[in-house]
Parts: sequence; structure tokens; C-alpha cells
Amino acid sequence: MTVIAQYLVHDQNGEFEKKAEKIAIGLTVGSWTDLPELEKAQLLAHKGEVVEVREIEESADGVRRGLISISFPAANYSFDLPAILTTTFGKLSLDGSIKLIDLHFSNEIQRHFKGPRFGIQGVRELTGAYDRPLVMSIFKAAIGRSLDSLHEQMLHQALGGVDLVKDDEILFENELTPLEQRVPVGLAAIAEAAEETGNRPLYAVNLTGKTFELKERAKTAIELGAPALLFNVFTYGLDVLQGLREDPEIDVPILAHPAFSGAITSSSRYGVSNPLLLGKLLRMAGADLVLFPSPYGSVAMPKQETLQIAQALRTAEEPYAQAFPVPSAGIHPGMTAQLIEDFGIDTVINAGGGIHGHPEGASAGGAAFREAIDGVLSGQTLEEKAESSLNLRKALDTWGLIKV
Amino acid sequence: MTVIAQYLVHDQNGEFEKKAEKIAIGLTVGSWTDLPELEKAQLLAHKGEVVEVREIEESADGVRRGLISISFPAANYSFDLPAILTTTFGKLSLDGSIKLIDLHFSNEIQRHFKGPRFGIQGVRELTGAYDRPLVMSIFKAAIGRSLDSLHEQMLHQALGGVDLVKDDEILFENELTPLEQRVPVGLAAIAEAAEETGNRPLYAVNLTGKTFELKERAKTAIELGAPALLFNVFTYGLDVLQGLREDPEIDVPILAHPAFSGAITSSSRYGVSNPLLLGKLLRMAGADLVLFPSPYGSVAMPKQETLQIAQALRTAEEPYAQAFPVPSAGIHPGMTAQLIEDFGIDTVINAGGGIHGHPEGASAGGAAFREAIDGVLSGQTLEEKAESSLNLRKALDTWGLIKV
Repeated sequence: MTVIAQYLVHDQNGEFEKKAEKIAIGLTVGSWTDLPELEKAQLLAHKGEVVEVREIEESADGVRRGLISISFPAANYSFDLPAILTTTFGKLSLDGSIKLIDLHFSNEIQRHFKGPRFGIQGVRELTGAYDRPLVMSIFKAAIGRSLDSLHEQMLHQALGGVDLVKDDEILFENELTPLEQRVPVGLAAIAEAAEETGNRPLYAVNLTGKTFELKERAKTAIELGAPALLFNVFTYGLDVLQGLREDPEIDVPILAHPAFSGAITSSSRYGVSNPLLLGKLLRMAGADLVLFPSPYGSVAMPKQETLQIAQALRTAEEPYAQAFPVPSAGIHPGMTAQLIEDFGIDTVINAGGGIHGHPEGASAGGAAFREAIDGVLSGQTLEEKAESSLNLRKALDTWGLIKV
Repeated sequence: MTVIAQYLVHDQNGEFEKKAEKIAIGLTVGSWTDLPELEKAQLLAHKGEVVEVREIEESADGVRRGLISISFPAANYSFDLPAILTTTFGKLSLDGSIKLIDLHFSNEIQRHFKGPRFGIQGVRELTGAYDRPLVMSIFKAAIGRSLDSLHEQMLHQALGGVDLVKDDEILFENELTPLEQRVPVGLAAIAEAAEETGNRPLYAVNLTGKTFELKERAKTAIELGAPALLFNVFTYGLDVLQGLREDPEIDVPILAHPAFSGAITSSSRYGVSNPLLLGKLLRMAGADLVLFPSPYGSVAMPKQETLQIAQALRTAEEPYAQAFPVPSAGIHPGMTAQLIEDFGIDTVINAGGGIHGHPEGASAGGAAFREAIDGVLSGQTLEEKAESSLNLRKALDTWGLIKV
């Protein structure tokens, strides 16, 4: 029963074996070679082991690189992410050019984590949207705006047929749109739209405030009717997310926002890999949907990494419900075919400007996405679909078409 | 009333003004130039402002660099670190080569944070050690060891006259030395030593487990007599530390350990600066003592950064109690003069190998540090002091002497 951690190490001297031994012993039993045999026998269950050491191609700037895998026995830590991260990358994060690439958990350890409460299947049941990507819309401007503005924005977004609408992640408790008023006003706008269209998107309300007040805040939001929560997990902690997930009264989907994650993932030499942090660990901790920078926009993530995040969130090799990947930023209707090509149908197409910036308004923007998806899934090109969809036509004229 | 964030940006095109404007508007009101005058008037209190843009010398690899300062109005966030970090470095952490260097808080915002409960003065009162650096000892090998081993290690450390003894940060709940048994056994060893020497070090017990159980765990430890807590704050969250600090029943000093912080601070282009994260923010959040890599050992931090951390922890410009800087790793008695030269007397000299590795054992190791400090503070060189101190003499023979 172990966690196996894989690290990327830069070392011009190529001393990867030595580094691996130092990690395996130094971060577990402390010393080994000179111990008496009796003590060795007692400590064997706690001793780290080098699983693999492999030199790979040099970095772009010509430094030798190695991948090191170390096994950390389960006897050494409790089964929570702070303990596991402290063991595998606590002091080590400060020890030279080293990046945590992956953690592999034994099944017995995985069982101590619940994963998403809803996951892809559960969110589909809540939205009634099957066999297609969901569409999510983001409030365009939230700071300094009134409840009336919020109501109007929500109404137009809901009328367009989107499946989810999320708060801006930088909207906190404030005098103009406090949570206690924002939730009912948003829901009223959704109900208004539903009378006209039958469509009732899930409103993901930003869960904010002090850590030890979050559970009460979440329950307040849910009592007010919040159908989902948005959470800036990386300015709190992975285990805070897990604590929310494990509370049976917080029984709505949780959208994990990547705010601040770039501080941990952006360097090629330090920190934690995107697929591990935004993929595997967020799913273990219980995120139902995970936002991350799409590979298409100005705030972009390398495509390979976004696909690896999506893979980690959906792989059947993990004993958890699948989580929805939500590639975000720079998304407009003209890239719908590309998005489905890259991320499949078990994804959420998430847009702000690509909905609000539609020449006919946010309602037409949402509709353009829905029509684009229908077209792609029925085998049409977006150009073909646009012949019968004025909303899509105008979107393509505005933002262009990304050909697959 | 604002938070002013300062960023370091790498940009080969040197477009720092443009980047600054994009941040100031994009992360606050969203858009500006084309807004109607009435809306501009309504939003003025929420609009970010560029405070300073300054190109500095190129990076070592020849890329142009700029320092950008942006003011974020207090109307936009609640007064907690997750909200402030999401606002100032949430999405932005993912947006290219950008590092958060500093945050400057208005006095009215600072007042919402309590800072250390004890601080340097309070910890001195608890230890009875004034006008000199404190000495802290670290358990040498903790994983897989019995309560008897813990007792013996604690006894020898306490006998040497150290002021604090800390758990290994990778010691979690485990069958051999669970918290409920570890605390009384450790305290019994300290009492034994005190009968002999009168010296009674503070035992900093590692606070571990799930976030929403930490307060209860801390209170259990305190009820058992734990005189201080060690906390791996960066695998939990800064606001979790603050929540512990703000609980009136958790009335013991908190030692913040830097485990995992390297994932956030190590890159010169991404993440958060050491002086901000380990200095200013840990002090605001309530750490009484802050461990960080010393500039001397094999796991080293650049000296300038360690001095800036110490400065942030102790500056009288902040309305908080001062926190103890604890430069750690690679410390032995022969560098005592250097440590006092660099960090002054309001510091903690913290050693593991430099105490346990003393040829006469941990007790002699602790005594060597205490004697070295006495010598330096009375104006002697360590060589001079060693003439009347056999413990120090043997330490210098073992590890050498760092001349100031």
C-alpha cells in the first residue's frame, strides 16, 4: 500500500540515481546504510523505495533531465492530501530544480477519497442534457453592478439555452449583490426564462469567505436554492474542497476554478504538473467540474496538458465518478467542432465574451453555441449548420470559424 | 482603501504599460473605455488603477523585465486572503510570465487580520529566554520509531538546554506515536530533564489531519499539554492558519513550516515571492515562528531572500506582533556568529543534524549552541569561547567554524 511519486529533475551532472536514493531515504526513515540490522527490520515497512530512474531528453536550454519515481509506504502518512503532499513534496519542493509530475495511489488509499458527488452523469441528470457537450455561460461584468444588472444578465443567458451559468470568480461578498440577495434574484431570472423556453440552467454561485465559515455559507446558499457552487480551491486548499464534498448537506455540484493554480503549475522546473493538480487531485478531492485555460485563447495552456487534464478527470482507471473538463477562455461558437474534436462530448463548452459579445446579445450567443453543437453532432459543418441558424451565422461572421 | 499588488513581468516586447492597463481593468470592472459616462461614474470606486510601471534590468537569459504595480479597490473583495489572492493573482497567475512580488495593504484592511497571537515577545515570555536567539531542536528520526525512542530523543534534546523542540513535519497520525500518546510522553521527558537542569523547552506538536477537524485536533493537543503547534500551512492554506490563529481556544504559539512552499516560490518567473509568502502573509495570518531554508545548507535559499523574509516578519511598519524567523537546514554551532550577524538576536537557531550529530550526543549538541550564543553575545569569538566550553570545542572540531 503506497503512493508512488514521479518527479522531473533538472541536473547538469545527471546524478539522478543519487538524488532518487536521497529522496527515498531522506523523506522516510531518515538514514539507512549504517543502521543496526534490528532497526532495519523494524523500519522496513516505512522505508521509501526507488521505483524508477530514467534520463530523458535535455530541456530546451540544454540541461540534462531525469524522471524519478519513489514509493512512499502508507504507514508513513494519514490518508489526506496535506499529509501526502507534505510527505512527497514538502521539504522536497524547496530542494533544487524539481517538479512533481504524478502521484500514483494504491487502491486501498484511493478508497479514502470519495471523488465527485455528482460527476458527469450526475450533472447531466440535473441539467437534463445528455449525449452532447454542456454549455456554460459566465457573467460578463459583475463587480460594481446592481442586482438589476445581475437579473438582466442572468435572464438573457438563460434564454439562450445554456446549461450552466457561473458567477465571476472575483465576485465576493459585497454590498450591491450579496449572496443572500444574488441567489434568489438569479433564480427568479432563471424561472422567468424557463416560462418562455423551458430551459433552466444551473446557477453556480461563488462560495467565498473564511475557510471555517465555508460550510455554513455553502448551506446558506443551498437553502436559498443555489443549484451549484463555484469554488476558488487553490486560494483555500485541496483538502478544503474535499471537506466540502464530504459534508452530506452540501449536496450540489462543485465547480473548481483554477484561480491561483498558475502559481503552482506554470514553471517547467518547479511546482506541480497541471494533469496532477487540476486533473487527478481535483477529481479525488471531489470537484464535479474543473475549469482550466483552453489551448485556444490568449490565456492559453499547452494543448497536450489540457488533454491530459481531461484524461485524468474522465479515465475509467480511477474508482471515482468522472468529472467534467471545462476548457475556458477564448471560446466562441466557431470553434465548436474543434472543441468536440479535442475534448469529446463529455465536456462543458464555457464562454464569456463568446456569448455576451454576440451582435444580437447573450441570448443569441448561447443559442448559437447550442445550434453549433447540434450541427456538429448531426454531422454538419458549422458553415452548413449556419445556413439554417441565423444566430450561428452571425457568430461565425463575428468571430470566424476554426476548421478542424 | 486598497491592496496594491506588485508583479514582475517578463516580456521580450517590453509591453509593460499595456499589460498593466489590461490587469487594472480586466481584473476589476472588466471594461472601461467604451462604457457610458453614467456607468463609469457608478464603477469608479471599483476600477483598478495602474500605480507604477517600471522597466528593470534584463533577466540573466536576456529577457526584458518590468515591475508593475496595480491598485485594487477594497470594494471588490472581502478581507480574507483567499479573496485577495483570487483578485490580485487568480486568473492572472495563469496569464504568461508573471510573478507576484508584493502586496501592500491599507491600514484599514490590515486591521481585519490579527497577526501572531504571541509573536517574538510572547514566545520569549513562554520560554523565559530574553536578549538572545532561541535554540530549537528537531527530532532526528521520527518515522517508524517507538514512543520509547521519542522519549529518549526528547530527554536528550531537553537536557541540552534548547528552548524549543519540534516534531518532524512528516510525522502524521500513526500507530506507533499517535498524538494522544506522543504529547504526554514528550512532556514527561521534558519534565524529567527539567528536574535536572531547570530547563523546560516548548514542544511543538505537528498538527495534522483533515482541515475541518484541525481545530478539534489542536484543542485535543492543547488539553494534553502541547505547549506549541507545528503546522504545514502550505499543504492546507494560509486562511486555514488564520482560522486556527483566530480561535481563542487555540492559545499556543504556531510554527509555520515551509513544506510545499517551494512549489509556489521557486521560479523566478512564476508564482509568489518568498518575502511575501513566507514573510508578510504568514505574519498577517498569524504564524508566531516561521521556518524557511537557511542560506547556508544544501537545501538553501538565496541569502537576500532569507533576509527579506526576516525583515517582513519583524518590521515595525506592520501593526502586528513580530514573528520569529527560523532559518533552517545546514545549521551547526560553528555558524552561530554568522547567524547572529545575519539575523540578529530576535531569531531562532534551529538544528537537527547539528545537534544530534554532536560526538557526545544531542544533549551536548544543544549545549554547544547555547554556549556558542553566550560567547558571541559576550563579544568572544567562537574559538575563544571553545577554550572554556568542551561541547563547543567538539562541535567546532566536527563541523568547522564559519568566520564572520
